[in-house]
Amino acid sequence: MARPKKILAITGGVGGAKLALGLSKILSPEQVMFAVNIADDFTHLGLHISPDIDSLTYALAEQNNQELGWGRAGETWQFIETLGSLGGENWFRLGDKDMALHMRRTGLLNDGTTLTAATVEITRRMGIAHRVMPISNDPIRTVVQTERGDLAFQHYFVRDRCQPSVSGFRFDGIENATINPVIRGYLTDCDGIIICPSNPFVSVAPVIEVTGFLAATGHIPTIAVSPIVRGAAIKGPAAKMMQELNIPSTALAVAEHYQGKYPGLLDGFVIDASDAEDLDQFKLPTVATPSVMVSLTDRIALAERCLSFYDEL
Amino acid sequence: MARPKKILAITGGVGGAKLALGLSKILSPEQVMFAVNIADDFTHLGLHISPDIDSLTYALAEQNNQELGWGRAGETWQFIETLGSLGGENWFRLGDKDMALHMRRTGLLNDGTTLTAATVEITRRMGIAHRVMPISNDPIRTVVQTERGDLAFQHYFVRDRCQPSVSGFRFDGIENATINPVIRGYLTDCDGIIICPSNPFVSVAPVIEVTGFLAATGHIPTIAVSPIVRGAAIKGPAAKMMQELNIPSTALAVAEHYQGKYPGLLDGFVIDASDAEDLDQFKLPTVATPSVMVSLTDRIALAERCLSFYDEL
Repeated sequence: MARPKKILAITGGVGGAKLALGLSKILSPEQVMFAVNIADDFTHLGLHISPDIDSLTYALAEQNNQELGWGRAGETWQFIETLGSLGGENWFRLGDKDMALHMRRTGLLNDGTTLTAATVEITRRMGIAHRVMPISNDPIRTVVQTERGDLAFQHYFVRDRCQPSVSGFRFDGIENATINPVIRGYLTDCDGIIICPSNPFVSVAPVIEVTGFLAATGHIPTIAVSPIVRGAAIKGPAAKMMQELNIPSTALAVAEHYQGKYPGLLDGFVIDASDAEDLDQFKLPTVATPSVMVSLTDRIALAERCLSFYDEL
Repeated sequence: MARPKKILAITGGVGGAKLALGLSKILSPEQVMFAVNIADDFTHLGLHISPDIDSLTYALAEQNNQELGWGRAGETWQFIETLGSLGGENWFRLGDKDMALHMRRTGLLNDGTTLTAATVEITRRMGIAHRVMPISNDPIRTVVQTERGDLAFQHYFVRDRCQPSVSGFRFDGIENATINPVIRGYLTDCDGIIICPSNPFVSVAPVIEVTGFLAATGHIPTIAVSPIVRGAAIKGPAAKMMQELNIPSTALAVAEHYQGKYPGLLDGFVIDASDAEDLDQFKLPTVATPSVMVSLTDRIALAERCLSFYDEL
């Protein structure tokens, strides 16, 4: 199979954004577009917060906070500390710089700008040449079904620190959400899709389950990178969720989940080198390669390996 | 005349707040209440901002920024700098800590709390025992009539730095604004009113012109402290406004303005010691005393002098 000329990369939060940065370093803005999950978005303190768009934006601008593993570099916390002292809600740790991004986005949305146009403005201002595209301009909101009842995603993820046991997910609004027209247009001659190492249940699912997405991409060679390495998630609750859903928390189970739920979606799968012993169990072309991205070199190497994988399919 | 047992002090911004702090140091929360101008309030970036309430709150909490002369002590500016870099409106310099106060107030107001109850909550959280009371829970908005047309107060004051020449003022909403019931109740046995050294046109006028205020206070001995010292305002545009309105920018003209516009309002007037040579021109009991408040001692001394003035009336 020929190496794709135009890649659509699907990303969720921080893990996916690492590979996205690698891809952005070796592919031009014409050669790769990022389709980002918006089902984590929520309104908090009157602000429209888009955590996955922001994680990718900070990563591509190389302004991500490497000490914390989330948020913006060089962040300070005067606002949220003071808000707490005044009795305000402070469970969602809004940094002073990060606040500005949410305020700017909210102002643009309140002026009638689409989420896409607001994201274009913000990423342009941050010096990002590549296109960061919300999967839809319409609201999609993940509801996590737990032992404590239904929880809005950020309540589950941040406020309750992923502690409640999960039984399922719902994506409110997804049936009425239209695929972002910029992504739809890009897909007409896109010839490769890479699912970055993001959570299959709450980051990737609400992207690919948007009405029309699978129909528009079914013919496009698609590979996914496992977010699970040696039974654990590099970041986030994916492994814990899999256990609670009675799925083994393995890279193999991730591939089988994608294959079972979305037949025909995957043409190839990428696992970490440390899971190479399981390679013969996969029921689709699979390669093992170092996928734990610590340095920029790691990010670029994994991006290169994803592209060269197409040559082998 | 006996020294009052219960004082209502009318305050605007930073100048008035200095005397208010002095009063709070020598009078208990039962002995003095602060009636604060809200006509400078505005909605900006979705936040309800009450500059005069905040100036007084920071002053009474001794959290006012002494270097800047406005805003909160120990302030940082990450939010507003970042917002500017993202193309957002940054002419109103919102500090990171100050933002938290606006966000908390806005949240409380959006939950249906009155401005009074929101202010009580915030001042309590900041450790202030004295009562900071907006003159009304209803919106009043100063419109500055200028050579460039009508300007919302903060556009005139902050964005345009008081540069446009002023021809008059309008207080939108004042005819429908009801006096704060807490202030109305306090006035039933209040026996002294002190008008702090605030701008007569845009700080004091929209307090005393609230429907029913003058009727409720006409019998209460009232003294005012001149915000003009040796022809200049200690802070703010009062002197510039007086020149543009063809009024001499003198303490005498301030007294005559109050006497002409609100007959019977004033029972005494306080001017700065440096203007003592003009004392015989005043057509009401007037004392000259050091009124430029630099230190806390200055604030307390002027507060003491205002109270002792009642003994001489």
